[in-house]
Formats: sequence, structure tokens, C-alpha cells
Amino acid sequence: MRDVAIVGVGMTKFGRLSYELDEMIAKACLAAMDDCGNPGIDSVYVANMGAGAINRQTALASAVIDRLGLLGKTSAVAIENGPASGQNAAKLGFFEVASGYSDCVLVAGGERMRVAPGGTITDFVAMMSHPKAEYIHGVTLPSLAGMFARLYMDKYGITSEDLANVAVKNHANGMLNPYAHIHQKIALEGILLSREAKLNNPVIADPLRLYDMCPVSDGAAAFILCPLEKAKELCDTPVRIAGVGQGTDLHAVHERPDPLVLKSVQIAADRAFAMAGVERKDIDFLELHDAFTILEFAESENAGFFEPGKCATALREGVTQIGGKLPINPSGGLKARGHPVGATGAAQLVECTWQLRGDAGRRQVSGAQRAFTVNFGGFGNNVVAHILERGD
Amino acid sequence: MRDVAIVGVGMTKFGRLSYELDEMIAKACLAAMDDCGNPGIDSVYVANMGAGAINRQTALASAVIDRLGLLGKTSAVAIENGPASGQNAAKLGFFEVASGYSDCVLVAGGERMRVAPGGTITDFVAMMSHPKAEYIHGVTLPSLAGMFARLYMDKYGITSEDLANVAVKNHANGMLNPYAHIHQKIALEGILLSREAKLNNPVIADPLRLYDMCPVSDGAAAFILCPLEKAKELCDTPVRIAGVGQGTDLHAVHERPDPLVLKSVQIAADRAFAMAGVERKDIDFLELHDAFTILEFAESENAGFFEPGKCATALREGVTQIGGKLPINPSGGLKARGHPVGATGAAQLVECTWQLRGDAGRRQVSGAQRAFTVNFGGFGNNVVAHILERGD
Repeated sequence: MRDVAIVGVGMTKFGRLSYELDEMIAKACLAAMDDCGNPGIDSVYVANMGAGAINRQTALASAVIDRLGLLGKTSAVAIENGPASGQNAAKLGFFEVASGYSDCVLVAGGERMRVAPGGTITDFVAMMSHPKAEYIHGVTLPSLAGMFARLYMDKYGITSEDLANVAVKNHANGMLNPYAHIHQKIALEGILLSREAKLNNPVIADPLRLYDMCPVSDGAAAFILCPLEKAKELCDTPVRIAGVGQGTDLHAVHERPDPLVLKSVQIAADRAFAMAGVERKDIDFLELHDAFTILEFAESENAGFFEPGKCATALREGVTQIGGKLPINPSGGLKARGHPVGATGAAQLVECTWQLRGDAGRRQVSGAQRAFTVNFGGFGNNVVAHILERGD
Repeated sequence: MRDVAIVGVGMTKFGRLSYELDEMIAKACLAAMDDCGNPGIDSVYVANMGAGAINRQTALASAVIDRLGLLGKTSAVAIENGPASGQNAAKLGFFEVASGYSDCVLVAGGERMRVAPGGTITDFVAMMSHPKAEYIHGVTLPSLAGMFARLYMDKYGITSEDLANVAVKNHANGMLNPYAHIHQKIALEGILLSREAKLNNPVIADPLRLYDMCPVSDGAAAFILCPLEKAKELCDTPVRIAGVGQGTDLHAVHERPDPLVLKSVQIAADRAFAMAGVERKDIDFLELHDAFTILEFAESENAGFFEPGKCATALREGVTQIGGKLPINPSGGLKARGHPVGATGAAQLVECTWQLRGDAGRRQVSGAQRAFTVNFGGFGNNVVAHILERGD
């Protein structure tokens, strides 16, 4: 199995975008190609969840390479694993290069969600839940997250203020990220500590409020993989894919023996660490899938970075801030960067690459050598994790 | 790169099925698992085109492994490349095993199309065409095939009778295939040679008639990949994946310099043959993507088995019949086996495996050692081809 590195990255700003879906993805691809001297591309993977359901388009990958003029010997395919599509596509691109079949693979993720008619987005997202045990009964992702948060708060004694601290931190980080959807500084005083503040931050799925939820975003991100041994020809600082792991769990959340135990995250993380041959203490920062604030706690703990229920304390103590011992979501996370579902996993890997190269500007994690990231599919039924490290 | 073999296969009957989409796919998976002694599965690929658009379901692969009880360390992902999804998923599963990351990969394809409301299927299928240059102007796949057929007939002097001969042959083969959607023997007299016959076989997209089109089918097919060196532990006759190729072309058919030149088929075939290190003369039979009768001619010729315009003559001479020198579509092809879009590529590989093992019953191609198959995406914008051979 050959070593594989990320040699070029690019993304669009996330937000409300007016580009066609395939055009948006192509823009991110062009940025990634420009970033490493426009190498010849053997194969393109496009991560996406909603083309068929929202955009009335199939064969999305063919449309993307047509936009790029990459036709003939360049192959193309679309990948779907709910919100974990991005890092799942990365994993498949990794196999293509690791196997020796191809030398240069472009992986992109993109979603154009904001064209969906008002009121239908929550339904669209809910289509990833169990079709018979959840979706047809009206379960939504915010409702699952609300019930999960209530269980978690009861068990570990954390408060709404702890959850809001995640939003405050990630909004602050997002202010430093020019690609982030949300550029809005918030403070506990403005979203939680008074009756007036709470009116600005209504309950969506008790106990979760508006500012506990990621926004609905359009956007795309892309990166280019090649064998590590050739990576130095294409960029100054290759970023090596040191570990790849995936884990799955019961589709219907209520069937899990203890819903607070995210087995899929545990398995994905353990496999990524086993492959990389490193330990949790060797990781310099995390990019996690905080579609809801509670998930930053749950993922960091289930991935083995904190004892269960302890991430909130670490946040209060500054451990997970940029400049702390283990920054989480220096990008702003899904909470502030935004969450175009198919793009998110790709954007996480792009952020890790920028950080490891030292190219993250004002949100740079100083001296970062190794990153861990989780892309959370469904409500934890299918999770992909990566460990990236400087390859120079 | 490790050698990879197919060790187990299974499929549902194709037709109008009442199973849920994920249940249908799970049934094919269970048949494939039973076929090779239920080995442990590391990873599952699910090829599908319409879950989001027709079945209001995303994260389909998670639903499938939940049905199968394959949770925890088994990963799962859905693959979409229009009607070429099935063989594209096979290619990605091949990479996972070839790279050395996994030892046992299950690849499935499935589609539940017949639940789409009447009159909307042609629109659903058209969503794979170019979104701006074709789809919004009302282009459909039958209309593209009709224009292609007219050009081809004008250039090579073939007739409607030549096209109908494809249907007659493939329906006859389908009579011998218990999994085929259509079990109906037809003859030129009944579908073309009189005014009454033509009334039974109306023009759908001139010059193509009803019997030039594949049916709309539900169904699923699946197979299991493992390293060739371990294959003998799981089955008596492993089938080696000798060659894998993919080729792409301009998305909008009218932009191609000569629409009759299927560059994607040429590239996919050439790459598969280069990888396999064999020649066209070494192939014993073909499974082609005859969504329209004309495509059996166009694909066999562009893949290099006949001179352009000559497959019709070969058919009249019996060359492409079961028992001929180069049988095409002994399964009945898409024309008779049916065409649940995401399942077709998987079903083609399942049929090739049965034939190469000598397990194809009354439709057996005698002494078959090596097969070539084409899975045609879009109207030729993204094509995957495989060469399979006996691995014992």
C-alpha cells in the first residue's frame, strides 16, 4: 500500500451561493488544481448528498468533469454517505492512489441546499434517518440531537451555558476564517443570559436553541491526492494521510443500547489511530463535526480525547481554544464555517491541510504537526475519521 | 497491487418488486454471502441512482448494512454514476482490496424505479443528461438514442429489422434466464413485418420502437471481492478481475465532433485490455449495455470487436448468438433481463461470473474462460468496462 499525500486544496466561500451545483464544485476543484500547479488528473470523486433530491440532477460527477474539461481518460464518480460523504470520498480516493492504479486523484465535495423551498430543508436532511423506524414518524436531525443533548446533560451535569460556549468559541474562530458562512461574533450575554437574549436564540429542539445549530449552507471544497513519494514535485509541504478509519452503528438511534455511546466514532477513531501508529497525545488539533454544539463534546470524548462528560470543562479552561493545548475547530467548525452536507468532510480535510502547512492565517494553530478529524454520518450510524500529518 | 477475484454472487429476480429499496438490495447481498460461505465483510459499496430522487432516501448504504446486521467495523457507502453505477462501484471495491486495506468487500447495486408515478420515469432518467444543455430543453434518453440510431442507420445502411434482430435474440436469451424481467419470446413477424405487428410495437423515438427499448425494472445484484490468493478458500471457481477501465466524454451529446464515435467506450475498453494484457480475440462472450437495441451494435464496435457498422451482419450470421463465435448478452441483456439502473452493472458482473464458472444453465456459453462487459453511463459520457476471467 503506497503512502498518499494531499498536495493541493481549495474551496469556495460557504454561504448562500448563486452558482449551479456542478459549477460550485468545479470552482473548488480549480482552486485545488491551481494550488499544486495543475497536475494531470486521473480520477475525480464528488461527494454529495442532495443532487437527486434537491437539484434534480444525477450523474453529478460527469457534469463536474465536463465543466472542468477533464474528459477522456479522467474518470468520475459521485459518493454518498450522508453528511460523511466528504471524508468517505477521501477514503476511496486514498484507495485508488494507495493501490497503485492512479497517481493523481481529485476529491471534491459540494452541496447546494439553499435552493430547496423554505421549510423543506429539515425534511431533506431527515431523509438520511431510518426510513421506516424514524423518517416516516417525523423524526428530524434536530430532534435526535435534542434528545441526545438532554440525555447527555442529565448524565454528565452540563448546562445550556456549556453548549453555548461551543457556539461562542466556534463563532469566534469563524471570524478568522474568510471561507466561513457566519462572520458574527457572539457572547453568552447576547444569546443566553437574559430573557431578551433568549428571545434572540429560541429553542428549536429542547434543550437546543438556534445558536446550537449549524446554518444551512451552499459550498464546495476539494483536494488532490498523489503518492507521497511524488508529492514534493507538486507542493512544498505535502500532508500525509496517516490514518483512515470508518465505523458504523445501528441506523435507528433508539435501538442503540446506550445512545450516548457513539460506537461508530470510537471504531473510526481507533482504526485511524491503529493505522497511523500514533496516540491521542500526538494530535495537535481536532476538526470535528459540530452540526449541533453537543456533538463537539460527544465526538471528542468518544474519539478518546477526553473522559466522558469532560470536554465542557476543558472548553471552560481554554484547552480547546486556538492557543489551548488541544484546539477544536479552529476553522469555526460546522457551526460557523457552515454545513453544505456533501462538502463538509472535504472542507475539514482542506482546513487540516492549511493548518498543517502553516497557511491558516489568523486562526493558525501554532506549530501544528498532526490533525485528527471526524465526519459524522446520519446521527452517528456511519462515521469516517482521518489523521493527517506533515509529510515533509 | 493485489490480484482481486469475485468469490460469491447473488441477485433478485428483476421486474416489478414490492420490497423496499434497501430490503431488495439486502436480499441480493445475502444471496452473494450465502454463495461463498458467509465470510466476514469489511466494507459494502451500494450502487444506486434514484434513492434521493425517487425513494426519498439518502444514506442508502447505511440502511442496507443495518438490514444485514453488518455493523461496527463494516463500512458502507453509496456510489452514483448514472446507469454505470454498478461497474463503477465494482471498480472502487477492487481498489479497496487491491490496495491491501481490506480483504473482503461486498458490492451491490439496486434500484426501485417502478414506484415512481406513471409518466415520471422518463423524466427521472433524463436527470442524468446535461442539466443546462439537454435536460431543461426536454431531452430524454430515448430521444438521444433515437437520434443516434438515425445517424447510425444513415451512415452504415442498417435497417429497423437489424435493430429488431437484437431484441429477438435478447428476448430468446432472456427466456433461459430465471432472473430476467421479461420472459416473452418475440419474432420479427410479431413486431415488425406487418401493419398489425407494428401496431403492437409503436414508434417511441423515431426510428426506435417499443421493442427497441429496455423495460423499467426493479431489482438488485451483488457480489463479493477478495484477494485472489485467498479466493480458493471461499469458492471452487474464483473469477479474477483481470482488467478495469473507465472513460469519459463530453456530457452533452450534440457537442461531440462525431456523435457516433463513443470515445468513452473506446477508452474504457482499451484501458481494460491494456491492464489485462489480452486481446479482443481472447474474449469468449460480451455482456453489453443494450438499454436501446442500437447500443449493442455501437458498444461492440466501439469496444473493438467489430468494424463500425458490422455487428448487425454478425448478428444475422449467428456470430453473436449463444453458440456463435462471440455471444453477446447471453443473459438477455438490459432488453430482457431488465434495467434497474443502479443494479445493471452489478448484474452484468454477476452474469459474467455465472458464465465463467459454468453455472449459467440453459444459457451457458460453452467453455467460456474470459468475458468483457460494458456499463454505459449517461448517453456515453461516463463508461466503465471490465474483463473477467476464470481464476482457477
